[in-house]
Order: sequence, then C-alpha cells, then structure tokens
Amino acid sequence: MAIAATETETPAARAFGPAAALSCRECGERYDLAPRFACEFCFGPLEVAYEFGAVTREEIERGPNNIWRYAGLLPVPDNVAELPNMDPGLTPLVRADRLAAELGMRSLHVKDDSANPTHSFKDRVVAMAVEAARTFGFRTLSCSSTGNLAGAVGAASARAGFRSCVFIPAGLEEGKIVMAAVYGGQVVAIDGNYDEVNRFCSELIGDPAGQDWGFVNVNLRPYYAEGSKTLAYEIAEQLGWRLPEQIIVPIASGSQLTKIDKGFGELIRLGLVEDRPYKVFGAQATGCSPVAAAYEQGHDVVQPVKPDTIAKSLAIGNPADGPYVIDVCRRTGGAVAHVDDAAVVDSIGLLARTEGVFAETAGGVTTGVLRKLLDEGALDPRAETVVLNTGDGLKTLNAVESGVTATIKPSLEVFKEAGLL
Amino acid sequence: MAIAATETETPAARAFGPAAALSCRECGERYDLAPRFACEFCFGPLEVAYEFGAVTREEIERGPNNIWRYAGLLPVPDNVAELPNMDPGLTPLVRADRLAAELGMRSLHVKDDSANPTHSFKDRVVAMAVEAARTFGFRTLSCSSTGNLAGAVGAASARAGFRSCVFIPAGLEEGKIVMAAVYGGQVVAIDGNYDEVNRFCSELIGDPAGQDWGFVNVNLRPYYAEGSKTLAYEIAEQLGWRLPEQIIVPIASGSQLTKIDKGFGELIRLGLVEDRPYKVFGAQATGCSPVAAAYEQGHDVVQPVKPDTIAKSLAIGNPADGPYVIDVCRRTGGAVAHVDDAAVVDSIGLLARTEGVFAETAGGVTTGVLRKLLDEGALDPRAETVVLNTGDGLKTLNAVESGVTATIKPSLEVFKEAGLL
Repeated sequence: MAIAATETETPAARAFGPAAALSCRECGERYDLAPRFACEFCFGPLEVAYEFGAVTREEIERGPNNIWRYAGLLPVPDNVAELPNMDPGLTPLVRADRLAAELGMRSLHVKDDSANPTHSFKDRVVAMAVEAARTFGFRTLSCSSTGNLAGAVGAASARAGFRSCVFIPAGLEEGKIVMAAVYGGQVVAIDGNYDEVNRFCSELIGDPAGQDWGFVNVNLRPYYAEGSKTLAYEIAEQLGWRLPEQIIVPIASGSQLTKIDKGFGELIRLGLVEDRPYKVFGAQATGCSPVAAAYEQGHDVVQPVKPDTIAKSLAIGNPADGPYVIDVCRRTGGAVAHVDDAAVVDSIGLLARTEGVFAETAGGVTTGVLRKLLDEGALDPRAETVVLNTGDGLKTLNAVESGVTATIKPSLEVFKEAGLL
Repeated sequence: MAIAATETETPAARAFGPAAALSCRECGERYDLAPRFACEFCFGPLEVAYEFGAVTREEIERGPNNIWRYAGLLPVPDNVAELPNMDPGLTPLVRADRLAAELGMRSLHVKDDSANPTHSFKDRVVAMAVEAARTFGFRTLSCSSTGNLAGAVGAASARAGFRSCVFIPAGLEEGKIVMAAVYGGQVVAIDGNYDEVNRFCSELIGDPAGQDWGFVNVNLRPYYAEGSKTLAYEIAEQLGWRLPEQIIVPIASGSQLTKIDKGFGELIRLGLVEDRPYKVFGAQATGCSPVAAAYEQGHDVVQPVKPDTIAKSLAIGNPADGPYVIDVCRRTGGAVAHVDDAAVVDSIGLLARTEGVFAETAGGVTTGVLRKLLDEGALDPRAETVVLNTGDGLKTLNAVESGVTATIKPSLEVFKEAGLL
C-alpha cells in the first residue's frame, strides 16, 4: 500500500526545513522525504527524522504569533510563514487558578486549542499536511475524520487553494458536519463508525482513483503528525521555557500524545529547556478505552473495540499509535485512564464555570481524567500540571444540557416575582 | 438614571491606566471615573478621556499576545495582564488573496475575531468591563445581549470570579443560548426583541434591585466600549504600523465603528502610524438598517425600526450610536450600506470557500456590503482594504444550508458509482 516514490520525485531538501528523511519507527529503515507512510520491509509507521541546526529561544520569540515560529523544528519550507495556510497555534495557556483551587492543586494550566482557526487542535496537523501536499504537487486533500479534522481540512483547502473531499462517519454532530461542508469541498458520510471510514480510505488510497490525492492522515501522515509537536513547544515556551511536571493528553489515534513527548524531548536535546522529568497521562472515554484497558492489564498490544461514547472526536476503536502511547506513559511515569460519559459532561461544566473555557467532549475527557487521577493519588496535586482542551464546545452542543434559566415578559415585576435576583 | 458617585468612591487613578476622566460626547462636561454613563446636564453619552504618556511601537510589540499589549491606551489597571480575565485579541488579520482575486481587488484582509475566546469580538469589550467592575467592587455582571455578549459575559464572569445574570431576547440561535448558559450564570430570556430587552435592563438598573450590578453595556458602558479600539490598534500593527485605506465595519449599536475611528485617531496623534486618510464604511442587514436609511436620506437622526433579519447579532433597531456612525462615515469619506439576508448567506459561503473563514451572519453582512459597494463603485478596488468578521459561523448554523454531499456504504465501488471522484 506504500506509495511509490522515485529519487526524482523527492523535493529539494529545504522544502522540508530541518527534516532529513523518513524513518521507520519499528526497524529504523530510512526513506527519502516522499508521500509514504509505511515501511516496505516491516510495515512499521514512518516518521520524520531531523538534522536540526541551531535554534534559539530568541529566534523563536521573534517569529510569527503562530506555529510557524517553530518552523526550524518542523518539516516545512523555510518561507512557510509567507504561504497561504491557516496559521494556527499560539493558543492560550490559561492559568486555571479557580479550577486548581476547586481540585486542591497548586499549579494548573489549561492549554485551550479551541482558539485555533477551526477551533480544534487539528488545524496544527493539517497545516503541516498542506505544506507537504503543496511540495508533492497534490491538488486534492482528503482525510478520514471523526469531525474536527474534516473542518480543518475543508478550511485549509479553501485558504490554500486545494480541492477537498473528506470522509466522515454518518451521525456526527451537526456543528461538525456544517463546518466540514461550508468551505465548499465534498463531504462524504460513510454508513459506519470511524474505523470503517478509515478502512474505506485505505482501500481508496490503494486504488488508482486515490493515487493522486493527499490523504492528510494516511499518505501525508508522517508530516501531518509532526504538527502535534507544536503543542509541546508552545506549552514549554508559555510556561517560560520550562516543561510541565505532569500533562494530561486525550487519546484518539494516540499520535498527539506521542508527538508531545517527542516535542518535549527535542526541546531538551536542543538545550531550549532544562532536562527535568515530566509525566505524560493519557485520557480516554470509557466507551472507547482500548489503550487504557491494555495499560491497566499490563499489555503491550491494544485490542480494538467498538466505540460507544459521546466523545466522538476520540471514538477510534483501533488506535494506530496505541502501543507507543503505552510506552510513553510507562517510560515517563504517567498512566492511561478513562472516565464515563457522565463524568465527561460534568467535567465540561466544571471547566466552563471555573475557567470560562467551553470544551468539547474531548476536553471533558481530559478534565475528567485529571479529577479521577487526583482522587486516586496517581497525579501529584503539588506538581505543575497542564491539561489539554483540544476542541470546542460549540461543536458538541448536544453533550451539554444547558439552556435559559427562565423566559419572562419584559417586566421588572415579573422578574422580581420569578425569584431570579 | 445616572449612578451616584462621590469623590471617595473614585478609585486611584492608575486603576484606570491613562484614563483621566469621563467626558460627555455632547456637551464636553467631565466626570470622575465612576460607574456612570450619561451626562447629568444634557443626558449625552459619556466616554473615556485620556492623558496618554509616551507609548512606543517597541513597548507594544514586547507586550503579551492579546489586547493587554495596548494597556497603555486603555482604561485598565497597570497590572492588568496579571489579573484573571479572558485575555482576548491579537486575532488573525488574514491576507485574503483568493477573495481579493474573486472580487477584483488589489489588497484585502479579513480581521477574523472569531478567534477570540468565546469566538466573537465581544470578548474585547467585556474584558474592559471586567476590569472596571473589579475596580468598582461589583460582584454581579449583567448585560442585555443579542447573544454573543451573553456568552462573553458568562465566560469572563466564570474566569474572573463574578456572579452573572444576562438577558437575551427569546428565540436566539441554539449555539448562543447554550454558550451563554454553560458557564453557570443565570440566563434570562425576555419575550421580545433586543430593544425590549434593553429597555428592561434600563428599568432594572434604575431600580434598587439592580443598583449593585455591573451592566457591562449600561453603567459600565464607557469602559466597555473602549475595548473596540483594540481592533483598530491590532489592524494597524498587523499591517506593519499602517492604517488601512478602507475598512468595512458591521453596525449593531454602532459603538464598534465609532471606537475603531477613535483608535485610528489616537494612533495618528501618538505618532504610532503615519497620518493618512482612511475611509470607514458601515454595514447593516436590510432587515435592520436604520443607520443606512438615515445615511441614504441625508438625515442626522436615526429612526428606530423593528428588526427582521437572520443577522441577529446586528438586530438592534434603535442603535444608540447611530448618529455618531453617520458622522464618522461622512467625515472619512466612507458610507453606510445594507444587504439582504440572501446576500448575507451567499457571502458567508464566499468567505468560507475562498479563505477558509466561517463567519457568523455579521461577517456575511460586512462581506456582502464589501461586494455591493465594489459593484457600485463606492469602494476603490485598488485601495488597501480590511473587512471585519466579528463572530463565528458555529453560532449561527441555521443561516447556512450546508450538509454532506452524499451518504454511502463503506465500499469503493459505491463511491465510484456515486460519481464523487
């Protein structure tokens, strides 16, 4: 299923900045930078390998107020900031003093990625895929999506001048469907869950019909996935060039969590932050918790499940990076945990009423796991902690039962009688 | 109806930074900085008057990545960046080359305020009101709202630790209602339109029951309104410390437009930008276009109307700043124009498919007016132009008819037969 790539198709090195090659995460085999995602020898996933030049805090701080300030750490063209793209990132790291007080914590921040252009962290990864697609000469962008990605691909395709055709499971939230379609691309709903959509896309990309499409999370996946590193860079910079001691990350495919760990490691090796321990915690919804289950059972292999949860953006029953997630959480001394849908809804409310952050269900999952692991003593309430909100409550309105307190006639008397003062 | 304020209630000067007094926009009478909004002599609206110190581009550029980088130009405490607030602003100024090409323009930018924390420009004005309320010792924040403001007040109250009670017209979009309520404050729907909600709030604030409430857009209005100046500052800074030649601003109460003009004027007087002409254009929906009507008829007085438009965030039939809007547009050589709901919907789609910006109806109004005034020759297609998107399409989903292209079984054959390639 790997895409054929010859030497002549490989673009000039600086089209990918400091990226030097693709390398297999399993066997280490190296490949030229091409639209290729699986090792020809062991079928392991490919990821971007770098030869970093000198990168300083000062250069980064002088850069644009978006992810391109980290261009020297990403597989993107040197002039990326000048090219049409959604320019996501540098989202707020909210000092969550009121939530911390309610949970008995000393220092808590919420990294709020709902501030991205299409209001989810997916803008980060799609921005990378757009640059790779441009370099490789693709004209159509595509993806399988649980919703947020479809919107991000639609918007970025519009901005950057690509045709788009995205695939979603039927039955997504209305906000996500409208947002996927409003940018004018094709939106194809597949009768089935995300894993079936994903299988369909794998078929399509193996077919001549899909050969010249850039599937952001399939044949462009190695580039795409690197976008999640920017979450790590931003958190460290926003903490004053310091790593948090604990971080809670949602798990869908698991890629985000592993790339945040990769990003922290790069910052340490480049001398941009002090080398000190950090613990990575993974969060799943109980209704789709295959990684948490494997972690709890001490397994390395993740058994696929059929998702049944309101946290649809995390509803990937067969997460590609599950084993790597378990590696990271074990190695750093973190954990993987899950919370049920009731806790998700409750935690969305908690985050909203203490910090004014309206999270989508995925943010309810991370906040719920934060509470659970504090209760269980697995999280240290005195350690500097960051919890991720990767999406926007406006896209999952049905998850919260929230409405007007009362409807009244425009009369002061009626208002006073209603006991609303 | 003016709130009584004695000398002893007036806070220390630096609690309001460079603000020196309130002054009446009609008769010039000056007042101490207090929760006061109307002149005792002529009933004219009060606004903040300043005594600016030296402010340099370099100081601003070194500031935080939000509106507090302009604290030296705003009525806020010197240490405002340290206080709990939503920290909105520094939203993207999107270089809209594809939209410009479609409209035959040389240089067009979209100032996209959907990137603010609650996804509308209202976070800017509420952030100011929060600081004033804190200084004045109010414990409850309130407002009359067409929807976006309610969400902004709810979120900011949660973050900053205020109780909140907001008033909205019944029949708002679902996204706006949920977003107003999710932060845990009271949301009271009033049977009637926005102007009736507004009258109700004026009654309430004159009643002992409302005396110790901070109504962000009533007794805190002079402070609140100054937040819109930050749009002007950001646009100028993001253009490389240069004023645009043309700007298209939506009109609800009209306050935003007049404050953008005020902000541009301040930048010129402080020597932060070159003094060159700029034209301000006001945009309304035909179904609520009292300012456009007065402008077209050459009147100074705005006749109230009963709103009937899908652009609910602009549906203020009796806009308080209408006459000042007409002043600004005439003085700068701009205009006030309106477009019907069909053009609003069409323009939302145009902006989405060319630039990947999903605007709420208000953004459809400004983009629609941009197109109309270009067609009529009232806008110069060669002049550097900025169009404002002040809200988020996710809050007005019903306005766009956008859905999946097709729903299919997960089969390549079915996909190919559906003619979707």
